[in-house]
Amino acid sequence: MRVRDIGEFGLIARIARALPAPGKGVVVGIGDDVAVLRTDGTRYILATCDIQVESVHFLRDRITPHQLGRKVVAINVSDIAAMGGLPRYLLVSLVLPKETEVAFVDGLYEGMREECARWGAEIVGGNMAHSPDGIIVDLFLLGEVEPDWLLRRSGARVGDRVLVTGTPGDSAAGLALLLRPEATCPDVHRELVLRRHLTPTPRLWEGRAIARSGLATATIDVSDGLASDIGHICEMSGVGVRLWASALPISEAAQAVAEATGANVLDWALFGGEDYELLFTAPAESAEELARQVREETGTPVAIIGEITPAEEGMTLVRADGVALPLQKGGWDHFANR
Amino acid sequence: MRVRDIGEFGLIARIARALPAPGKGVVVGIGDDVAVLRTDGTRYILATCDIQVESVHFLRDRITPHQLGRKVVAINVSDIAAMGGLPRYLLVSLVLPKETEVAFVDGLYEGMREECARWGAEIVGGNMAHSPDGIIVDLFLLGEVEPDWLLRRSGARVGDRVLVTGTPGDSAAGLALLLRPEATCPDVHRELVLRRHLTPTPRLWEGRAIARSGLATATIDVSDGLASDIGHICEMSGVGVRLWASALPISEAAQAVAEATGANVLDWALFGGEDYELLFTAPAESAEELARQVREETGTPVAIIGEITPAEEGMTLVRADGVALPLQKGGWDHFANR
Repeated sequence: MRVRDIGEFGLIARIARALPAPGKGVVVGIGDDVAVLRTDGTRYILATCDIQVESVHFLRDRITPHQLGRKVVAINVSDIAAMGGLPRYLLVSLVLPKETEVAFVDGLYEGMREECARWGAEIVGGNMAHSPDGIIVDLFLLGEVEPDWLLRRSGARVGDRVLVTGTPGDSAAGLALLLRPEATCPDVHRELVLRRHLTPTPRLWEGRAIARSGLATATIDVSDGLASDIGHICEMSGVGVRLWASALPISEAAQAVAEATGANVLDWALFGGEDYELLFTAPAESAEELARQVREETGTPVAIIGEITPAEEGMTLVRADGVALPLQKGGWDHFANR
Repeated sequence: MRVRDIGEFGLIARIARALPAPGKGVVVGIGDDVAVLRTDGTRYILATCDIQVESVHFLRDRITPHQLGRKVVAINVSDIAAMGGLPRYLLVSLVLPKETEVAFVDGLYEGMREECARWGAEIVGGNMAHSPDGIIVDLFLLGEVEPDWLLRRSGARVGDRVLVTGTPGDSAAGLALLLRPEATCPDVHRELVLRRHLTPTPRLWEGRAIARSGLATATIDVSDGLASDIGHICEMSGVGVRLWASALPISEAAQAVAEATGANVLDWALFGGEDYELLFTAPAESAEELARQVREETGTPVAIIGEITPAEEGMTLVRADGVALPLQKGGWDHFANR
């Protein structure tokens, strides 16, 4: 049996089963993107890692070192944002071919430094190794959160509404243009979706607003794809979900790029991934209030896009015409056959 | 300019220069193997990462997945040991080709789990990605240390003695046998040096004993090679060093393997690396007492192998015949031309 046969999530589940029960210092352990750890201080420590592998996560000729540096920090900050915390300290593991230009490393660190400064984090260490092949950047980010503010994936309840920040699908639109730069679409749209793909903005203040409200029942960031990530919430919460296609907040830019490239923008919004939006749930009676609070505090749009159902109803997508379809998880699985 | 032109340490120095001054939460930042961070609790957090890249750090057909799992945990624990701390939480970043056997991952985790249990650490999370090429295991280890117990690289003073645990050079002897398994030497020696290379024992309790004594002025673990690592202490402390070749504790096993393979055992002890012994300094009048304490508490041999000199005397090796030679750092540099 090979890892492609059981996939990333199958492999993680297998590893988790074989591990001993977590000790009493562990608030959230394996299976989440972020480990939550007790100290004898007043705050929990958050620890997360995210990796960018050349020709898997990025193409050298389609992203500048500066953009790559910003992005790899941003995606780690996004994980911390989804826990309601604040990023603090970054360790950088860098695997480089000997022939790498020093200018590449300079640009990468400049991007990482800039993005760290933006979110109040600092680079405190790391590790370097020689690569026989491509470039790999693996970041380890430590953050902290007040125990009362911790957001989890596991609290969604039947009847809760599903909310999302921003406009998922933009990142996939950006990727489509990176891969097919000859596609014609207005510059303003092109620039927006490329920026959203190459230098995404983690929703840190939105996460803090959600945490402060005390209204959310579950939260995750959209990295694998909205459908896959709501799937994680459903699994951890023991519930199902019904998403409303017509409520998905699709940007004009993503729509235009989809038309220019002959793609389905709904697929991008549901399965595209790398949006780094926050996806969260709240009781039906609080959902509007929570959306309003996040919008007012951050200026970021928030849409209500579905509702939590009993687990046995599974995951469905209600089309604009009212037809309900089974929603495939279909997000990014690193080892899946495709 | 390429990274091979300035080397690993040149690159780290360049990166450190470009970073802003560390914030007040950072006790030890970039340039050390371990970041030391304040919390509002009573202990400092220690954060370190170490990576194993296939065909750079290990060869698939020369180490079992279980051994690799043990080793990659051990080398991270060794970094924590060198700070006088205790390891607590491990995050595992795994980059795998899709064709990797699940049995490989099972064995790797079993080894990591076993080694973690040995040192009181637990696996709490991580990250997986698809590799276009070889296997990469990148570990992030969090530990903690009482502020009074923190060991540093920077406190060695002129006249201090240099001490080392165990018998450096064994790991290089093991590597030599891995690469030339046909070399003939007694099984007992073969087994010892292979074990020391494939499943090194981090000197955790030795580090705690050194910290508890309050006698050490500087400490590091021997990962790059004894000469290179004492070089780090000299650089951080602003001193030089004189090592006594005849005092280097060479094991009978390393000696036998050197003879069998036609190698110079002194080179292995000084430049071999991957020994994961602790290398430390203490005032001349306390050195014997410190060596005794560590030996008594842990059963591990400790040798006094040299003395700290003024910086302008540089790094020298005094041969058995009394001739002093300049000591090249000559440890492992990941990007050096060789």
